[in-house]
Amino acid sequence: MAAVAGPGGFPVVGVVGGGQLARMMAGPAIALGITLRVLARDPADSAAQVVPGTDLGAEDDLEALRRFAKDCDVVTFDHEHVPTEHLRALEADGVVVRPGPDALEHAQDKAHMRRSLTALGVPCPRWTEVGSAGDLEHFATEVGWPVVLKTSRGGYDGKGVRLVSSAGDAQDWLARGRPLLAEERVAFTRELAVLVARSPHGQAAVWPVVETVQVDGICREVLAPAAVSEEHALVAQQVALRIAEGLGVTGVLAVEMFDTPDGVLVNELAMRPHNSGHWTIEGSRTSQFEQHLRAVLDLPLGDTSMTAPYVAMSNVLGGDIAEMYSGYLHCFAHDPGVRIHMYGKDVRPGRKVGHTTVLGEDAEDVRARAQHAAAFLRGDIDG
Amino acid sequence: MAAVAGPGGFPVVGVVGGGQLARMMAGPAIALGITLRVLARDPADSAAQVVPGTDLGAEDDLEALRRFAKDCDVVTFDHEHVPTEHLRALEADGVVVRPGPDALEHAQDKAHMRRSLTALGVPCPRWTEVGSAGDLEHFATEVGWPVVLKTSRGGYDGKGVRLVSSAGDAQDWLARGRPLLAEERVAFTRELAVLVARSPHGQAAVWPVVETVQVDGICREVLAPAAVSEEHALVAQQVALRIAEGLGVTGVLAVEMFDTPDGVLVNELAMRPHNSGHWTIEGSRTSQFEQHLRAVLDLPLGDTSMTAPYVAMSNVLGGDIAEMYSGYLHCFAHDPGVRIHMYGKDVRPGRKVGHTTVLGEDAEDVRARAQHAAAFLRGDIDG
Repeated sequence: MAAVAGPGGFPVVGVVGGGQLARMMAGPAIALGITLRVLARDPADSAAQVVPGTDLGAEDDLEALRRFAKDCDVVTFDHEHVPTEHLRALEADGVVVRPGPDALEHAQDKAHMRRSLTALGVPCPRWTEVGSAGDLEHFATEVGWPVVLKTSRGGYDGKGVRLVSSAGDAQDWLARGRPLLAEERVAFTRELAVLVARSPHGQAAVWPVVETVQVDGICREVLAPAAVSEEHALVAQQVALRIAEGLGVTGVLAVEMFDTPDGVLVNELAMRPHNSGHWTIEGSRTSQFEQHLRAVLDLPLGDTSMTAPYVAMSNVLGGDIAEMYSGYLHCFAHDPGVRIHMYGKDVRPGRKVGHTTVLGEDAEDVRARAQHAAAFLRGDIDG
Repeated sequence: MAAVAGPGGFPVVGVVGGGQLARMMAGPAIALGITLRVLARDPADSAAQVVPGTDLGAEDDLEALRRFAKDCDVVTFDHEHVPTEHLRALEADGVVVRPGPDALEHAQDKAHMRRSLTALGVPCPRWTEVGSAGDLEHFATEVGWPVVLKTSRGGYDGKGVRLVSSAGDAQDWLARGRPLLAEERVAFTRELAVLVARSPHGQAAVWPVVETVQVDGICREVLAPAAVSEEHALVAQQVALRIAEGLGVTGVLAVEMFDTPDGVLVNELAMRPHNSGHWTIEGSRTSQFEQHLRAVLDLPLGDTSMTAPYVAMSNVLGGDIAEMYSGYLHCFAHDPGVRIHMYGKDVRPGRKVGHTTVLGEDAEDVRARAQHAAAFLRGDIDG
């Protein structure tokens, strides 16, 4: 895999998509001497601002993908929205695509994901594919209303997911004729996430299990480690490792889970660095962004142990303040230990524009400090 | 200081010089949403490879500096070789230059530095300015041969410094007529370095004292913290803080010291991130590169505490192997905890092309592991 190779024989990793995940790969790539290239839709995209020589093009434009890929030793992703047939075409051209289309399709198509996880024996909420009002009503007689209805493709951050209390509620989605999935509404005690990285030759490394706090389907906070027993954490990690191996994932895989009194149930998968792993930048000896690069390059994986007993991450969502830089004065003076990451994105209400991280000895303390900085930057509090 | 400002009101920091120090500022700038710009001599320079829109130009070309500076909210440095008169011209144009020319001149001119430190009461080796063989001989009668002879300007990494045993030894340098400085040869027990950051409004933050291991005037290893008593460390830190304040430094200041049975003596100053602080990238809650950006932007400074009891850094010097990437396979498999930084520079014998860092609980263990990886990458050992 040294067909292209940047300065001094170091490889070139191409990332499809110019969002904050690609942006946060830039630091580790610079450290490792790996050339990062990005295919972005707009020169103002989060990663395009900071990665030299970004290619402009859409992830669903095969010719743009082909032009981009020919200068890369390996192609990987900032998001999962590249059409599978395009990835197969790239592979037919000889491009190294990681994760490959067979694996990635599980992160693109929720029905496909559910079928594969069920076949692997991975615990999932009860689910069914829905083609009609009758299918939905039949499923509800088994699991009870309300039911979680999902579009099989295209969802993220709460989009493409809704709670329906009757087939009538779902009429608009049913009328569109796109594949839908119904799932039982799980009475969870908390949401967990397990991040794992897997390399093509099969090495896998798992980070400590974290708790994610979601509001309206959007991740607001991540708390590491989750306050669960060691045995319980081990089961969750084993589920994630089984999925990574069973689906042939390469790179980072995020497994979002519901924690219930009867055990964990897998909710969603993402096959790339993930919001639930931003805490690893400072909170783990190897960040998810470095690990993803190492995994897709088939390098041995790094130490995933924590750098402090407790780590909290809070997302900075767009609020009333368009210009967040002046908030640094307060945040850094108030708390010399707070870490701020901004994504170079225009502030829009509810949009993820950055995150804060705090490490320390006390779970409640680090959480309160990360929350404070995120809320202050957003404009929710005065200091 | 928001005259220029990048996306969303975030400032633009311009770095004069495209070496690895500018390169290692890129990661923290990306995280903070600060736009970094670099003035480099060559598009293949270490930082120019990774920072979009690098300006090409020489640090001694006033017009290039002016073109570069007009798009920056603050101008800072990767090295100290910008002529003082150019910096004064930029300031007269209204450019914010940090550190300013009055401070920076102490890092450019060793005689000026010695005069100012002596006036501040900072402990230094005995020294004198040398204009003739007679001056040198007179000084040697006081301190004894051999004497350390330095060119007042232009030295780094052991260049511009030599040991002379007689005035005859120094004939060539004396004949050139450039300002020279003679210093006593200090019988030191070890070399220490103290890194401090200072912001324009006077906040200062100091990192733990480290030991530096030099071979032929080139830093090979840095061990944090130095194995000195708490009282001794405090004295060394106070010396560095006194220099930062006394010389009006803004940004990171590295103070290299000789440790002797009678106390510390200041050897050299650098007014920028420094090799003795590379360990802070993973080893401190705030790296010297982030802290330098925060300091020159007059943001409150970050926590300088260590992330592990012991941290060792080993420089990767150019050796027999031109292509170091394949060494990653061994290094990362051998030690999942080792951190590797490469600078994107062509390998030449003795050239600093990267460094390795290891964190842990045991001083000898982390040192041996950092050494092993650096030696393996260079080609000194087989694994």
